[in-house]
Amino acid sequence: MHARRQLAALALLAGLVAVPALAATDTQAPTPTRAELLAKSTAAEWRTPDPHNLLVMQLPSGRVLIELASDFTPLHAANIRTLVREHYFDGLSINRVQDNFVTQWDDPESTRDHPDPAKLKSLGTAKKALPPEYTHAINGKLPWTPLSDGDVYAPQVGFVEGFPAARDPATGREWLTHCYGMVGVARDIAPDSGNGSSLYAVIGQSPRRLDRNLAIAGRVLVGMPLLSALPRGAGPMGFYDKPSQRTPIQSVRLASELPPAQRPAVQVLRTDSATFAALLDAQRHRRDAFYQVSSGKVGLCSVEVPVREMTPTD
Amino acid sequence: MHARRQLAALALLAGLVAVPALAATDTQAPTPTRAELLAKSTAAEWRTPDPHNLLVMQLPSGRVLIELASDFTPLHAANIRTLVREHYFDGLSINRVQDNFVTQWDDPESTRDHPDPAKLKSLGTAKKALPPEYTHAINGKLPWTPLSDGDVYAPQVGFVEGFPAARDPATGREWLTHCYGMVGVARDIAPDSGNGSSLYAVIGQSPRRLDRNLAIAGRVLVGMPLLSALPRGAGPMGFYDKPSQRTPIQSVRLASELPPAQRPAVQVLRTDSATFAALLDAQRHRRDAFYQVSSGKVGLCSVEVPVREMTPTD
Repeated sequence: MHARRQLAALALLAGLVAVPALAATDTQAPTPTRAELLAKSTAAEWRTPDPHNLLVMQLPSGRVLIELASDFTPLHAANIRTLVREHYFDGLSINRVQDNFVTQWDDPESTRDHPDPAKLKSLGTAKKALPPEYTHAINGKLPWTPLSDGDVYAPQVGFVEGFPAARDPATGREWLTHCYGMVGVARDIAPDSGNGSSLYAVIGQSPRRLDRNLAIAGRVLVGMPLLSALPRGAGPMGFYDKPSQRTPIQSVRLASELPPAQRPAVQVLRTDSATFAALLDAQRHRRDAFYQVSSGKVGLCSVEVPVREMTPTD
Repeated sequence: MHARRQLAALALLAGLVAVPALAATDTQAPTPTRAELLAKSTAAEWRTPDPHNLLVMQLPSGRVLIELASDFTPLHAANIRTLVREHYFDGLSINRVQDNFVTQWDDPESTRDHPDPAKLKSLGTAKKALPPEYTHAINGKLPWTPLSDGDVYAPQVGFVEGFPAARDPATGREWLTHCYGMVGVARDIAPDSGNGSSLYAVIGQSPRRLDRNLAIAGRVLVGMPLLSALPRGAGPMGFYDKPSQRTPIQSVRLASELPPAQRPAVQVLRTDSATFAALLDAQRHRRDAFYQVSSGKVGLCSVEVPVREMTPTD
């Protein structure tokens, strides 16, 4: 197999490179690629996350950026900001990596069968319990971009400010969905026992059964491979059984509290933008030499909301 | 957070441990866990893969077992058996790992911009081109277990002998779906250019847009973490840009050609079994202390068809 053709085919698979259609006409122009569509986007179509909602988690391997979904889980966002300001996560670790499920980070002492209360890290002024923020009432104030392709789990799905979400008009409730890269709040059985001190990111097929059962704190914008490519834990549910396997967390900071030179310059494509709509349509309908059949559909969790990091010269 | 409760909650999350419901009655008995249901399965509910369909890929990190879907892609299965018998894959490598997409293995020379024909590994007696086996006619001979929960991408979905599949009654066609762990045949733009010498496994959210566009050779039964936890390639589309990053393939063998003592003893739960139906129902309806809301649904690619390895004492 000629590598250039293979790479071209693979690039089409990943939507990165345009290859002229074998019989292109004006009405059969090849589907624009993701790169082409993003290159044509306007500045107004990109949103800069509020630095008070942007967590910067520093690992030895690099930096993970997480945007808090403060419009959906405001109390959890506030509690996480408190923990972060008090440097709670510094020195903690990634303690659990379960294949096709989640990567979780928290106080390793809390993951033991019999945690020593004297060794558990203090939550400082952060709250130990929070009201469950699993769903909220649709209030008409948040921009809702529907996804018309349907969904197995929810009556309606769509996007709110870059976050994948679902709605049930019968109950008037709305919630965030457990797609790849979404960050949830681990808890005990008591619904108010999650407080943001233990967080997990989805690293496999979207576990949608968890929707409306846990609070979703936010979404990983940058750095997913630093969470998804870790060795899986050999203990039950993917917990590491050897402390040496745990990736240490050097620090977690709010972007707003970093010196400007260290603050990440990241933007998220607006999910109510024309470019975003064009991206979805390009996923549904593929006119190019590689695809034999267009799916005609795009699933909620198959959508990767574009993120770009600005370099200092931008 | 008390670790035992946290672990119990997390175990519930993973469906591993039963915790009595807070207000259990006979009609509100807790949902059985996956472990409980599998423990009650009968011997007849488990299928032993045909050893002629079972690939044993030996990596330095361990063994990956792949079952060929010879009822769907018989020509590709035959060609892969030829390649495997002629030890084609021995000494090749994992050359591409793209986050939330695929891990791919093949002749690294073939992945170069300008492969040296003298360095490409000979396919031996295997064919270089095969008819595209992307879908086949529904013929009534394969056991079809429908999944009634619906699907975004296909009119009907279900299972055939442990493989997730889809159907379109309007066209009378059936095909395998790109769920987590499914193994596909990489190809060039020409539909007949896939031959099984380059294979990929899905390691993230199911890329269902690929259904009906590539042949699916089979499914990883054992060893997914050996493919999913690898460092992501820094090159375009996740190709490794440094040869030292490629995981070497020590060997790939057919189970039928291994000495009995080395042959893996693995079984797959029959997807037309009562236990499998009970597992699906347990995913849809969760009556336990942790879950606030049952989804009532289960998505095709959210189903992990159970696999068990028999130890010599079994």
